[in-house]
This record gives sequence, C-alpha cells and structure tokens, in this order.
Amino acid sequence: MAKQGLLLVVSGPSGCGKGTVCSRLIQNPAFLFSVSATTRQPRPGEIPDVSYHYITKERFLELVEQDGFLEYNRYATGDMYGTLKEETERKLASGCNLILEIDVNGARQIRARFPEAVLIMIAPPSMDELERRLRKRGTETEESIAKRLRRAGEELKEAPGYDYLVVNESGEEGLQKTADAIFAIVSAECCKPRRKQELLSALNITK
Amino acid sequence: MAKQGLLLVVSGPSGCGKGTVCSRLIQNPAFLFSVSATTRQPRPGEIPDVSYHYITKERFLELVEQDGFLEYNRYATGDMYGTLKEETERKLASGCNLILEIDVNGARQIRARFPEAVLIMIAPPSMDELERRLRKRGTETEESIAKRLRRAGEELKEAPGYDYLVVNESGEEGLQKTADAIFAIVSAECCKPRRKQELLSALNITK
Repeated sequence: MAKQGLLLVVSGPSGCGKGTVCSRLIQNPAFLFSVSATTRQPRPGEIPDVSYHYITKERFLELVEQDGFLEYNRYATGDMYGTLKEETERKLASGCNLILEIDVNGARQIRARFPEAVLIMIAPPSMDELERRLRKRGTETEESIAKRLRRAGEELKEAPGYDYLVVNESGEEGLQKTADAIFAIVSAECCKPRRKQELLSALNITK
Repeated sequence: MAKQGLLLVVSGPSGCGKGTVCSRLIQNPAFLFSVSATTRQPRPGEIPDVSYHYITKERFLELVEQDGFLEYNRYATGDMYGTLKEETERKLASGCNLILEIDVNGARQIRARFPEAVLIMIAPPSMDELERRLRKRGTETEESIAKRLRRAGEELKEAPGYDYLVVNESGEEGLQKTADAIFAIVSAECCKPRRKQELLSALNITK
C-alpha cells in the first residue's frame, strides 16, 4: 500500500502570495491541487475537473445531504463551492499530498471533519509589506485596499488555531524559502507517531 | 535578540544508532550537545564541562533542592546525573538548538517541566534489524542481547508519547536521511504559531 498523503490546508490573506507558493509546491510531483466542486458556470480558460468539478445545484445539495463534503461554502452570489470527501480520501490513499487553498472558515470545517489535515497559514512579513504588495497590483481602489487589510487582520488572528505559520518573504528567494518550509513541514508531519501506525505495529509485533 | 533555540530530546533503544545520529546533527553549527551534571568521577579521556559538569553530591542535592534541574536520575551505582535548568535556558536563549540524549524516563520529566521541548524517538527499522545490530557489535552475551531487546521493546512502547518517531535505516544513507528528517523537524517546529509570538505581535500591532 502506498503511504497515505497529507491534506495540506493553506490559508492566508489576499496579497500574502499563497497562490504563488502553492504553484511552486505542485512543481514537486508528490503534490497535487485539490479540485473543488462548484455550482457556478465554467469561466473562459477553465478546464472541467482540473479547475473545478462543475455540478448542478441539485447534485451539490444531494452531496451535502449525503455528507459528501469535507467543507463547503455558499458565496454571496449564491454559488456553492465544496471539497469532495470521497475524492480527497481516494487521492490521499494513493500517496499524493493534496493542497487545499481555502479561507479560515473552510479551514475550521476541515479541522473538525478531518483532524489529520495539516493547517498552514501563510503570512506577510508585516502589515506594511502586505499593503505595499496590494498597492503594487495597481488594480485596487483605496477603499478595496483598506477592506483587504482589515480582512487580512481578521484572518491572521486565526493563525494560533493553525498548525503552522509561515512567513512568505518577498522575491524569488522568499518564495523558495516558503516552499522549503512547507516541504520540511510535510517531512516532519510524516514523522508524527500517529502517522506511523504501520511501523508501530511492526515494532511491537515482530518480537 | 537571537531567536530562541529548540531543546531536542532524543531517545531510542540501545542499538538504534542515536549516538551516531546526534554526532551527525552537531556537525551543523546551529546544534550543540547539552552537557549533563554528574556526581561520578571523570573517566580517562573525558573533558570537564564538555563531557560532563563534575560536581559533588552535596552540590547536586543542593541543586535538586533549589529546583535547578530539568530532569535528574540516580543510577543503581548511586551516581546522579541531571540536566541543569539555568544552563539549558541560557544556551537556548542564545539561539542554539540543544540536543539532549536521554532515556524515556528523563524525557517524561522534561515534557512535564519544559513543555516547549521537542521529543524525538529514534527507532530501528525492525526488531530483527535491532537484533542484527546488537549482534554485530560482537561484545554482547546472549543474555545481554535478550535483555537489551526486551528493554528496547519497552522503550519503543513510549513512542506515541513522543512528538516524532524517526526510523534510522542502516548505512550512511540511512544516517543522513535520519539527520535530514530531524533538520526538517526543527524547521517545522520553528513554524508553530506558539513559537512565533514576535511575528504575531508585529502583525496585530503594526496596523
């Protein structure tokens, strides 16, 4: 049997760079993105079952009723997004580490329903640096920057509930340092005795 | 202020190779051996304050009475060994990662008195391999091998109480893999939110 992979829940405020970090992680073949199910329509350029699993609202609700999601969320638009339990477990069993980019609310649901998950919060080096990054985009209004910073403060307050807090410094070097920290986290998590049941049994039984 | 180092408690049955692993770790300048205090006489080749701190029994008992040890133990010979609390805290504050090779009883004392410690159990790949390693020494009687194996089984039963369980495979490659696993553990532990108080304060306060 392949070694069970880890479910890595990655959160972090807008502008912390978590998307870039996750893209770096999946350059390693042991890592895969978790594919969410959604009731919204595909957007141009999106690929079914790669970007999202597109399902009807009826099917989504049926899965909710059947306890088929590890977490799900209804957005203000009415669109629903969720992480399929069966698919997650199947992919983990095949040995992949699954990356789930998700906000603090989703992370809280995962923690409750899948305690083996590893929760990682990506943080900017400082709120000033976060503001600099948001401004650099050049696409945000003052109002939206202020709103994102407020929201960032709220999200980062959840960090103590996460297993790990990784600061994503700026630049290529910072990015690689963040990715390396997450690789180290995966390696360390695999050494937790509760993830070593097979070895523990072997050591107790062989003699 | 230098970043606080980690206290790494390393246990493992006789023959698991923990001594060799620890020697490999301290080739990295961020790692230091913790120096125990003992009431026994120096042996030829030992260096005071490097091998041990040699102190009188009266001084040892005084330190016990003053709560000066993180853990201590009296051996069947009457000799006493202990880990000095003040020295440990001073070295950790300077940023060193301190390695404390100690048995499961000492580890239990450390856990209770210094919860920030990271407990690592080194295990052989199997009990058969452990037996092979003990026999290879060529210095053990059948009786002593049987006794060590029994004791190993008892020690390994404590693994679920440790933070990490690392299998030390045989050979140079196995040794380096074990050392790398421990480096990853240190790196991951430094990302625990409870070890990031400074960052957490900065992120909440700056804005």
